[in-house]
Amino acid sequence: MLQLRIIDDAVSRALEEDLSSGDLTSEACVPGTAVATAEAIARHPMVACGGEVFRRVFQLVDPATSVDLLVPDGAHVEAADVLWRAHGPARSLLMAERVALNFAQRMTGIATLARRYVAALPAGSTTRIADTRKTTPGLRAFERYAVRTGGAHNHRDDLGSAVMIKDNHIVAAGGIEAAVARARERAPHTSRVEVEVTNADELERALTAGADIVMLDNMNDDAVRASVARCRRLGAPPRGPIVEASGGITLERIPRLAAAGVDVISVGALTHSAPAADISLEFTGLG
Amino acid sequence: MLQLRIIDDAVSRALEEDLSSGDLTSEACVPGTAVATAEAIARHPMVACGGEVFRRVFQLVDPATSVDLLVPDGAHVEAADVLWRAHGPARSLLMAERVALNFAQRMTGIATLARRYVAALPAGSTTRIADTRKTTPGLRAFERYAVRTGGAHNHRDDLGSAVMIKDNHIVAAGGIEAAVARARERAPHTSRVEVEVTNADELERALTAGADIVMLDNMNDDAVRASVARCRRLGAPPRGPIVEASGGITLERIPRLAAAGVDVISVGALTHSAPAADISLEFTGLG
Amino acid sequence: MLQLRIIDDAVSRALEEDLSSGDLTSEACVPGTAVATAEAIARHPMVACGGEVFRRVFQLVDPATSVDLLVPDGAHVEAADVLWRAHGPARSLLMAERVALNFAQRMTGIATLARRYVAALPAGSTTRIADTRKTTPGLRAFERYAVRTGGAHNHRDDLGSAVMIKDNHIVAAGGIEAAVARARERAPHTSRVEVEVTNADELERALTAGADIVMLDNMNDDAVRASVARCRRLGAPPRGPIVEASGGITLERIPRLAAAGVDVISVGALTHSAPAADISLEFTGLG
Amino acid sequence: MLQLRIIDDAVSRALEEDLSSGDLTSEACVPGTAVATAEAIARHPMVACGGEVFRRVFQLVDPATSVDLLVPDGAHVEAADVLWRAHGPARSLLMAERVALNFAQRMTGIATLARRYVAALPAGSTTRIADTRKTTPGLRAFERYAVRTGGAHNHRDDLGSAVMIKDNHIVAAGGIEAAVARARERAPHTSRVEVEVTNADELERALTAGADIVMLDNMNDDAVRASVARCRRLGAPPRGPIVEASGGITLERIPRLAAAGVDVISVGALTHSAPAADISLEFTGLG
Amino acid sequence: MLQLRIIDDAVSRALEEDLSSGDLTSEACVPGTAVATAEAIARHPMVACGGEVFRRVFQLVDPATSVDLLVPDGAHVEAADVLWRAHGPARSLLMAERVALNFAQRMTGIATLARRYVAALPAGSTTRIADTRKTTPGLRAFERYAVRTGGAHNHRDDLGSAVMIKDNHIVAAGGIEAAVARARERAPHTSRVEVEVTNADELERALTAGADIVMLDNMNDDAVRASVARCRRLGAPPRGPIVEASGGITLERIPRLAAAGVDVISVGALTHSAPAADISLEFTGLG
Amino acid sequence: MLQLRIIDDAVSRALEEDLSSGDLTSEACVPGTAVATAEAIARHPMVACGGEVFRRVFQLVDPATSVDLLVPDGAHVEAADVLWRAHGPARSLLMAERVALNFAQRMTGIATLARRYVAALPAGSTTRIADTRKTTPGLRAFERYAVRTGGAHNHRDDLGSAVMIKDNHIVAAGGIEAAVARARERAPHTSRVEVEVTNADELERALTAGADIVMLDNMNDDAVRASVARCRRLGAPPRGPIVEASGGITLERIPRLAAAGVDVISVGALTHSAPAADISLEFTGLG
Repeated sequence: MLQLRIIDDAVSRALEEDLSSGDLTSEACVPGTAVATAEAIARHPMVACGGEVFRRVFQLVDPATSVDLLVPDGAHVEAADVLWRAHGPARSLLMAERVALNFAQRMTGIATLARRYVAALPAGSTTRIADTRKTTPGLRAFERYAVRTGGAHNHRDDLGSAVMIKDNHIVAAGGIEAAVARARERAPHTSRVEVEVTNADELERALTAGADIVMLDNMNDDAVRASVARCRRLGAPPRGPIVEASGGITLERIPRLAAAGVDVISVGALTHSAPAADISLEFTGLG
Repeated sequence: MLQLRIIDDAVSRALEEDLSSGDLTSEACVPGTAVATAEAIARHPMVACGGEVFRRVFQLVDPATSVDLLVPDGAHVEAADVLWRAHGPARSLLMAERVALNFAQRMTGIATLARRYVAALPAGSTTRIADTRKTTPGLRAFERYAVRTGGAHNHRDDLGSAVMIKDNHIVAAGGIEAAVARARERAPHTSRVEVEVTNADELERALTAGADIVMLDNMNDDAVRASVARCRRLGAPPRGPIVEASGGITLERIPRLAAAGVDVISVGALTHSAPAADISLEFTGLG
Repeated sequence: MLQLRIIDDAVSRALEEDLSSGDLTSEACVPGTAVATAEAIARHPMVACGGEVFRRVFQLVDPATSVDLLVPDGAHVEAADVLWRAHGPARSLLMAERVALNFAQRMTGIATLARRYVAALPAGSTTRIADTRKTTPGLRAFERYAVRTGGAHNHRDDLGSAVMIKDNHIVAAGGIEAAVARARERAPHTSRVEVEVTNADELERALTAGADIVMLDNMNDDAVRASVARCRRLGAPPRGPIVEASGGITLERIPRLAAAGVDVISVGALTHSAPAADISLEFTGLG
Repeated sequence: MLQLRIIDDAVSRALEEDLSSGDLTSEACVPGTAVATAEAIARHPMVACGGEVFRRVFQLVDPATSVDLLVPDGAHVEAADVLWRAHGPARSLLMAERVALNFAQRMTGIATLARRYVAALPAGSTTRIADTRKTTPGLRAFERYAVRTGGAHNHRDDLGSAVMIKDNHIVAAGGIEAAVARARERAPHTSRVEVEVTNADELERALTAGADIVMLDNMNDDAVRASVARCRRLGAPPRGPIVEASGGITLERIPRLAAAGVDVISVGALTHSAPAADISLEFTGLG
Repeated sequence: MLQLRIIDDAVSRALEEDLSSGDLTSEACVPGTAVATAEAIARHPMVACGGEVFRRVFQLVDPATSVDLLVPDGAHVEAADVLWRAHGPARSLLMAERVALNFAQRMTGIATLARRYVAALPAGSTTRIADTRKTTPGLRAFERYAVRTGGAHNHRDDLGSAVMIKDNHIVAAGGIEAAVARARERAPHTSRVEVEVTNADELERALTAGADIVMLDNMNDDAVRASVARCRRLGAPPRGPIVEASGGITLERIPRLAAAGVDVISVGALTHSAPAADISLEFTGLG
Repeated sequence: MLQLRIIDDAVSRALEEDLSSGDLTSEACVPGTAVATAEAIARHPMVACGGEVFRRVFQLVDPATSVDLLVPDGAHVEAADVLWRAHGPARSLLMAERVALNFAQRMTGIATLARRYVAALPAGSTTRIADTRKTTPGLRAFERYAVRTGGAHNHRDDLGSAVMIKDNHIVAAGGIEAAVARARERAPHTSRVEVEVTNADELERALTAGADIVMLDNMNDDAVRASVARCRRLGAPPRGPIVEASGGITLERIPRLAAAGVDVISVGALTHSAPAADISLEFTGLG
């Protein structure tokens, strides 16, 4: 669920970028009375995402437009399928077109990539694929939504919603034990404390200090397997620690990491490297 | 040149996304008095872009930080080169890190890709590589700047800065002649009138109507060559029409299209498909 | 066409100026249940402009109000004609009155003045009257719309939508030739390159350099005539250069400048010196 | 005194209008390293106003610019006098020029007109010239400041700062007595209650009801004299009622109205009809 | 009357605080299709206030919700009474709940306290209870409305709506006489001039200088009585000075101060010390 | 640590409330050249909080002012102690005074109350006192900071930072087990899952379902003791569940609840019922 306030805020800014001084071409060439229908068409198989955003772009350009969402967010569609259909004053459709597609292509691209990672998990696996904070500035809520739409999970939303202790925090605090202790003492009790570890020794210290989540950073498959085993000796979640793998993740490693039993695999590429989906807007009629 | 007002506006929104409720980890684990230095390091060859944006992120988090730009925007750097160096309160550096990298990796990614397209032009070619309006919502100014940094050119900024007549405008206006006439009659005289054409007949009609720019849409190399020749019979720019090729552009076609003599090759992929550059921030000292 | 987003943004700010702490008088003296009708009446002949803005002021004060636009923007009306009629809660009408009139009087004043300039053109003339960037801070879109409503044309919207090379640019670039060359090399190909010239020598150099538009600055009628003739030797637009006259323009000179064949006459006074139209709001009934 | 927050807010919006996509010309033609000095020069006698706003435009475009205010706001200057001098990167000066002048020309125009009205008062007169709420949307604070700079006074700032009962309020409240009674009962005790009257009968009723200020609407000189005499029988301000004249005010009537003894003459034209002062920016050196 | 623009602005910011990254719990646990009804219930006797604000919170979270205001603002309700009833998607009700209550509890708390002060006035008294500028940053309009809802009055809205001369102004101006003279000379004639006095001598000087309002600061009952008597010798308002008592005001003193004849008693505690009313939201049905 | 961006945003809005049309009194009565010093003085023992906010109010009114923070946030001060000292143009100090105090009195009030609750814990207790989301709309970050300044802890920041399952969520999800399962399945793995329980049965089900935190709602001391004992059988945090008590909390119960071993006691009154601290600003010199 993407909140209307958040959609409208980002869409308004995007319209400001493209339409701050109107649309010279449409105003010159298209009669104000012309009415049209336009369809958003998938150019290849994809996981639809961003229908509501697509709709709001048209409505914020012109409340007299309407948009039908022919497929729900999260649906897999094939090439040539119609995703969404817009109707209204032709000028308004032309003015909204590019901004609407810019949002939709990005969101659908992310959802489609997320689905590929999720699909790579073995059947029945409880491992989750998660995003990171490597999101496009200004579009985090949209990209997190697209990740969920693709079936993956969100990591912490921002620096204020959970504790994640990395190498530099550890150095500054004077060691893993001190860092975890300080975090547990000061952070809201609703936040888990996650600690990044790179080897067995650090893992041991993190667990001893009471880390709720250990993030295995750039470990190979063997090290991951050993780490999971060590953690499980303290019990499985929710009472035992959660194990997350990150760094150097590829689609090929997903089945092996899942088989190793990690609880979470976090993948920056979901948001920073998803290619835009190819969606085009075709005018099917001009009244 | 990217204006300070525009940088600060986008950076502030991005910080709001990541820091609206503070940084639990740094505030818990890092002493307020600790001072550190951190270096942004290129993980592969790239064209640096976004140094000033990177700097402003740190300064907007904390005016007590400073950032040295070791290489100017547009410089080609090798793997392991240091791009920029930040110094200041360790907490502030940690709070700014992710947002600063999110901007820089995207901008550098685009500049690097643009440079590849420009490098594909034959030596001495006057053909320009141009971007499109397929930009990330909210980041158009940043992405257009990155395109220029890579050596490519910007297309029109938005719907209000120039006329571009596409198929739907032509249908709505009742033909190419009518569309161009209306546009020339109504648009500011400072804007050229561009017309999208898909074949020789449309090209002929656009030129007769007085199009200033013809955009050859999805034409193959032979058709492009013939179109350029036709246009040149009216003279070369600035008095003759400008020829732009777009649609189905690949890096491989660039030399052929340039050899065909087109003035502009516009490439949506510059902004919507540039992979993020891999830049990491390494703390080199903690005071 | 004035976009709803832009109207609402400016109207909201204007309401904030006048109503940030409510309306002491109406809230004290007018019963919350009273309903009224009020008419905007022209006090002298004028070209109506700003009906939609007038309407939005009332609706943003109170969605329960409604406004009928009795005459369309661009219509010439006589003294005592009713332009627009508002209906709704009396308190709301009184709260919106001043802001609504402040917008409408300015826009109508500009449209009326623009119409006078356009009417001064000889019958059948293809010369256009254009505005400049000498607009009221914060109201550019409104004033440009009013100019169009009066039948005149817009010049470039802002510093980013087209190139206009003035004396200082020429000095900084090292001459007209260098300035035009740099502009043609760097600016988007969708933007024409305009050069300000003050005499025949500068004109010659600008044309040679490939200027798309020459702006004859403060030239007398004879010099204008000669300049037009020189330009036409390169052909008429669109293939030949566009000729613009500016500086020292008066209503009296319009026919002579048009007869001289200039394509564009730009007039700063359209926006910075248009007297406000006299429109009053009369309450015709209080329910 | 014009608050920095208010200046910066309006200036930022104005820069957004003119510079949202940069300055194509300056960036293309002017080297980034060029430094220049530019002087704002009065083209006719005027009362300088807006120096601080002029300065902020340059500084918000580029903090590396500086502006010297050679004359203070309120100073009368002659044609060819230098008002303000800007120094800094040539590109930045060129980018700020138009917006800076758009503010300054309007403010100076208003101050100059206000000074003319004030100068029309007889020597030693205690009558004050006041503005109205007929200000440019978005610029009220600037225009009120310009009115004060010219030596005139401000009327109430907005609908929430004082009570002003007009004909429609009277109808809605059921008479002058009821309207004044309701206003006195409900409005903050810090606000005077002003009543608009058009004849002797209404004046009598307003005074009886306890009006603090009576506004003589569109009365001729004789009626004004008689009204003042009636009011003075209740004492002069501060214990007796304040007499304001408004409607149909011309510069010629000012001496007669002042002689009649009115306390305040309010003039909408100060803000809605002041012609822009002619100020130009001349570059005196390019480093 | 609280303006919709002002409500929506503050509510949007409050929602941003609580919902910027969605509602993890409701989105996880509550089906998107579930519909519910929830009632706001008074936990003790109170004066209802903020119904429209309560409603807007729900509507800004989700336009598909609706809210019935069972009691009007200003109504006295008993413990267990239902104030307002919300209906709509269960998720949306849960997302809006806390923000809606945070506003309503504060506003109702202030209205309830204001009512207590007003109720302490003797029957038939014309003395008014007024608030001060000691309001919560960002919520002044809401708190002033709550004060009026409770039956008390507003003091001046802000520093720009009326003149209030305190000790430091007097020192800076060089005495009461000079301060009042300067204020009367410069402030809008629509604003009364209030002077803070602490003893009979200062009172005398303020009256002689022509103060419109005297504020008796921290005077005991006897001094207040004497001061009122002195003021009344110049006449009762509106022609004579208004007498305000402030500082050291307690509920117990209200009857004595009113009996002494003061016109206004201003009480900072109305806004800065009103305890939040206890209102809870109970879900009465889940569809 | 309170971020500068957040301070400036709230302070700017508060200044807008109080100063949108300037300060009539100071501008009239206080010479622009007068310089002054003013001290913020505690009127009773309190825990200082908000020094940096206090400082920013002055600086945002006028960058020429300076503020010395004589005591750090969190310091206990006695009546008559000077907290902070401001220096600068007298007009500016007077314009900033009320807004600065409005922030500081509220923040100090909350810090002082929080300290009282923390002081009520037995020596050596590991129980923490926590706030809730019952904060003033628009001021959450300020109030959470004040809570920490007083030595208490923050609960989850907003609806998106952690899962908290209440009765209505349980009903909607179809039981505690289902609600917890859904939350664990969908929420970010960095968030703990908290469940509100009212009796031993619900507690048992919550624990079985894997709740990370159980919130004992309105339980009496005996029930709390029994609940803690039950939870500890699963281990102490971090591997065992965290026990929070809430509802019906009074200062008197704090020692007993701490003795019972609860980990967290959450108190809405910390933010919604803290009386404003009494701080006054005294001008100690006027230059």
